[in-house]
Amino acid sequence: MVKQERAIRTRKAILTAAAKVFEERGYRAATITEILSAAGVTKGALYFHFSSKEELAQGILHEQDQWLAIPDRASKIQQISDTVLLHAYRLQHDPMVRAGVRLSLDQQAGEVDRRGPFTHWGDIIGELLDKAEAQGELLPHVSAPETADVLVGSFAGIQAMSQVMSDYQDLLIRVNAMLRHFLPSVVIPSVLASVDITTARADRLVTELRTPVPAPEDDAVAPVG
Amino acid sequence: MVKQERAIRTRKAILTAAAKVFEERGYRAATITEILSAAGVTKGALYFHFSSKEELAQGILHEQDQWLAIPDRASKIQQISDTVLLHAYRLQHDPMVRAGVRLSLDQQAGEVDRRGPFTHWGDIIGELLDKAEAQGELLPHVSAPETADVLVGSFAGIQAMSQVMSDYQDLLIRVNAMLRHFLPSVVIPSVLASVDITTARADRLVTELRTPVPAPEDDAVAPVG
Repeated sequence: MVKQERAIRTRKAILTAAAKVFEERGYRAATITEILSAAGVTKGALYFHFSSKEELAQGILHEQDQWLAIPDRASKIQQISDTVLLHAYRLQHDPMVRAGVRLSLDQQAGEVDRRGPFTHWGDIIGELLDKAEAQGELLPHVSAPETADVLVGSFAGIQAMSQVMSDYQDLLIRVNAMLRHFLPSVVIPSVLASVDITTARADRLVTELRTPVPAPEDDAVAPVG
Repeated sequence: MVKQERAIRTRKAILTAAAKVFEERGYRAATITEILSAAGVTKGALYFHFSSKEELAQGILHEQDQWLAIPDRASKIQQISDTVLLHAYRLQHDPMVRAGVRLSLDQQAGEVDRRGPFTHWGDIIGELLDKAEAQGELLPHVSAPETADVLVGSFAGIQAMSQVMSDYQDLLIRVNAMLRHFLPSVVIPSVLASVDITTARADRLVTELRTPVPAPEDDAVAPVG
């Protein structure tokens, strides 16, 4: 059990280091040697968990996917909004999430299957939209898969623009504006009137979920065998 | 005059080659030597036009901005939709436009001011929204700069997603879906009913503008002094 915990911690330390190196250097320029040095683990430990740079990238993309769950809400539209707001918050605060999103948009990460996050997010949002439709929250003629794709694609661009324009400082404001432009075409007016998409809600969500937001300097991981 | 034409042709050949190299290699990994070889020009000719890799990138970003003009339309919302559809079409067909958009989203092009295209597009769409508002096409409470930012950011992500998912094959379909989700929150119903945002319109626009769409293999430029 203790052994397993240590393995999980090592794996996490390697992924955190890889996320940092990919973000600083870009996927193509990053080397395993740099990641080893940033993680402070042995070569053997790294190769025990990941056999290649590509596997490290897939690990980060997968890690990003692990953090999407918002507890069930009565309104599925609220649940979708919460999912989007929380992801925006995590983009601002969690280097792993940031690295995952950047990898998805990294033109030079050709060997990595970058469709994963788009598909995964599309599935999650699409499923919630199906439930919203079943309980009468959607306008007629909304196609859940299409609407999910528009939301996922738009979010990808809104976050990229926020990163370029303000290094993510204005991300929650931009996401709020995106949702205000998006939801009226999708949901019935009474849902629209009751859904909370304010930037303040993101903070409350984090408190609610007691997310372990990593401290800015917690990458100083002690060497683990 | 002939001399000047030759200089313009040389400049264009260099930018086309740089666009190709940046697209294949990414900004950071690309070298001037590769661009020289792809352009088939002398080192002196290149440095006459561009003093650095950064200037080449700025040249491409600027070139992308030169192609946005759609003739005046009675409906400014139609003009915005046409601008977006045409840009999508050019992304599919013009390597220079593609390279510009990719540079704007290239995390590793840190020394290049990537805000340019976002700001430039935001200004163009914002100005058209101001005109739309003046002639009563917009819903009350629409803020032109905010709405312009949402459209520009969403488009950036929709095109990135289309590139990842289908190498731009489905771009016009995705842009049509984006506009159908976006416009109802922005324009009055009678405008909504008359605006044409079909994928077929993009083809008609190209015919109307007689855009010189580059042939796929027209990068074989003869050496120019």
